[in-house]
Amino acid sequence: MKRKINTATLTLFLLVPCLFRCQPPQTETSQTEIANTDPLPSWNEGESKKAIMDFVGRTTTAGVDFIPVVDRIACFDNDGTLWGEQPIYFQLAFTIDRVKAMAPAHPEWKAKQPFKALLEGDMKTVMAGGEHALLQLVMATHAGMTTDAFAQIVRDWINTAKHPTTGKLYKEMVYQPMLALLNYLRANGYRTFIVSGGGVDFMRPWTEEVYGIPADQVVGSSGKVKYEVINGKGNLIKLQELNFIDDKEGKPVGIHQYIGKRPVFTVGNSDGDYAMLQYTSTGNGPRFGMIIHHTDSIREVYYDRQSSIGHLEKGLDDAALYNWTVVDMMNDWKEVYKN
Amino acid sequence: MKRKINTATLTLFLLVPCLFRCQPPQTETSQTEIANTDPLPSWNEGESKKAIMDFVGRTTTAGVDFIPVVDRIACFDNDGTLWGEQPIYFQLAFTIDRVKAMAPAHPEWKAKQPFKALLEGDMKTVMAGGEHALLQLVMATHAGMTTDAFAQIVRDWINTAKHPTTGKLYKEMVYQPMLALLNYLRANGYRTFIVSGGGVDFMRPWTEEVYGIPADQVVGSSGKVKYEVINGKGNLIKLQELNFIDDKEGKPVGIHQYIGKRPVFTVGNSDGDYAMLQYTSTGNGPRFGMIIHHTDSIREVYYDRQSSIGHLEKGLDDAALYNWTVVDMMNDWKEVYKN
Repeated sequence: MKRKINTATLTLFLLVPCLFRCQPPQTETSQTEIANTDPLPSWNEGESKKAIMDFVGRTTTAGVDFIPVVDRIACFDNDGTLWGEQPIYFQLAFTIDRVKAMAPAHPEWKAKQPFKALLEGDMKTVMAGGEHALLQLVMATHAGMTTDAFAQIVRDWINTAKHPTTGKLYKEMVYQPMLALLNYLRANGYRTFIVSGGGVDFMRPWTEEVYGIPADQVVGSSGKVKYEVINGKGNLIKLQELNFIDDKEGKPVGIHQYIGKRPVFTVGNSDGDYAMLQYTSTGNGPRFGMIIHHTDSIREVYYDRQSSIGHLEKGLDDAALYNWTVVDMMNDWKEVYKN
Repeated sequence: MKRKINTATLTLFLLVPCLFRCQPPQTETSQTEIANTDPLPSWNEGESKKAIMDFVGRTTTAGVDFIPVVDRIACFDNDGTLWGEQPIYFQLAFTIDRVKAMAPAHPEWKAKQPFKALLEGDMKTVMAGGEHALLQLVMATHAGMTTDAFAQIVRDWINTAKHPTTGKLYKEMVYQPMLALLNYLRANGYRTFIVSGGGVDFMRPWTEEVYGIPADQVVGSSGKVKYEVINGKGNLIKLQELNFIDDKEGKPVGIHQYIGKRPVFTVGNSDGDYAMLQYTSTGNGPRFGMIIHHTDSIREVYYDRQSSIGHLEKGLDDAALYNWTVVDMMNDWKEVYKN
């Protein structure tokens, strides 16, 4: 697994090599080689790649479109944008695994929906219960313990659980072109944030390793927590109570509450990302909005207007209006997942 | 833990600064100078300074106490820790100025408490109204506009408003030894966060300039906001509704929700910081807790157990229990404010 670097590491790596480890000045040849290196090798040449590089170029060099480093805020949706989301959100797969693991300690679930259906493998009934059923499952599995204990459960899962069709670890189901884009932006002074409808406590234990995005740059949905001293140790207990849903119009709200600045670069893949894309693109000055269109039925799954997961309709309809770059996954991406 | 980085990033980050920005290799002399430079020149020699430097040294060099860069999270209270808080919280001074500025458009305030008392300069009556009165004043002045408009009002105020006794701009009322400490920590790979009971929308417009702390590293109290498209532009409207109070047991909660990691280094000055200091110090591994004790009646104000603003009692009583370093402002600080 490749690891990305964060701002603090960046500082360290920029300073330390200059003072103590610098090699003698590079020759003309090696400078040219660097200039010729493609920062987005997993992207095919085309309009999308050109639009990204044009924007990053314009906003990081002197000129009317220059953006100061402190304002280079880039926001990424997670499910379907940085990693897969089919056939079910990966956090739902985690939730199902947790219900099964916890079932022996909860004999009452055998007679109680939606737990009963889930334990019998009847996902149709579970899904028919809608948001309410899902929330019940999430609350039963994501609360009633310390945040430290939950983080450990997530780490254990992400390091072992495998996707049902690809057989890859879920944490390997990340889009290589998006990893390249995150790196490219960070190399150009952008700070990269996740703004996801997914649970923040579910994402933070692994985003640093998988995306190079530290915990504090992850915005997501959350439950309430309560401070409690247990055996002399200060702990936060996860409560069965919603705190914030970071989806749709909640995404610009989450961006304001957590990041505190309007982003200049935002990427999403579904209509759940429409509001944050609009919030980004209607700010003053240069703005970049991008929609990942899942057009690849061979290497991934083709879905958009008809899909309930990752439903994309309004975003496609209004892409031209807001000058959003629509990425054609099949044609724009040289690779999808790491082989 | 050393972090592995991929080759492309390595090339970019190690070579680019060397090629284009590096000074000629340092001589023996200048390396020695670097080693001899006092990173905390505004601190007198003594136990506090020694404790800080010992901790930073131990946690950033190989050994049992080494802390990986990703976990070097440092949290600072704001009022009374990074800048002054006497004779009233500076955000209250802002609020009073706003009530006065907005009064012509609100003739009804002449007959309505606590506005009436405030406009008549009768702060005793205002304060007698307690939290409820203050909340009314804050809601009337901090809501009902876009977040962008509010940020501009704050910027205008912070750049012009002056403290009643020192005559300095409020943004100049920052403790020089704390600025040095923030810089010292950042130079050692720590990321510095504010965790304040103050309003997050009040702090973020100026923390970058004043403390070098970007908006997204500021945790504070907040009101709810709502996404709305106005004349085609996506905006966030500040509502007259509380979202989160980042004080006392709310501070570890805010740390979890916003930062997502238990800090290893925390500084506060009042019992409002007790819970976050305790949360920090009862984590595993090396931890550093520090309390700024306002002991300087000449250069600042002496206050602790008897004061309502910055009330400090439990923190002093339990400092030894948690091994908190209590900074004696009068003796530990060479300077307080910049002259």
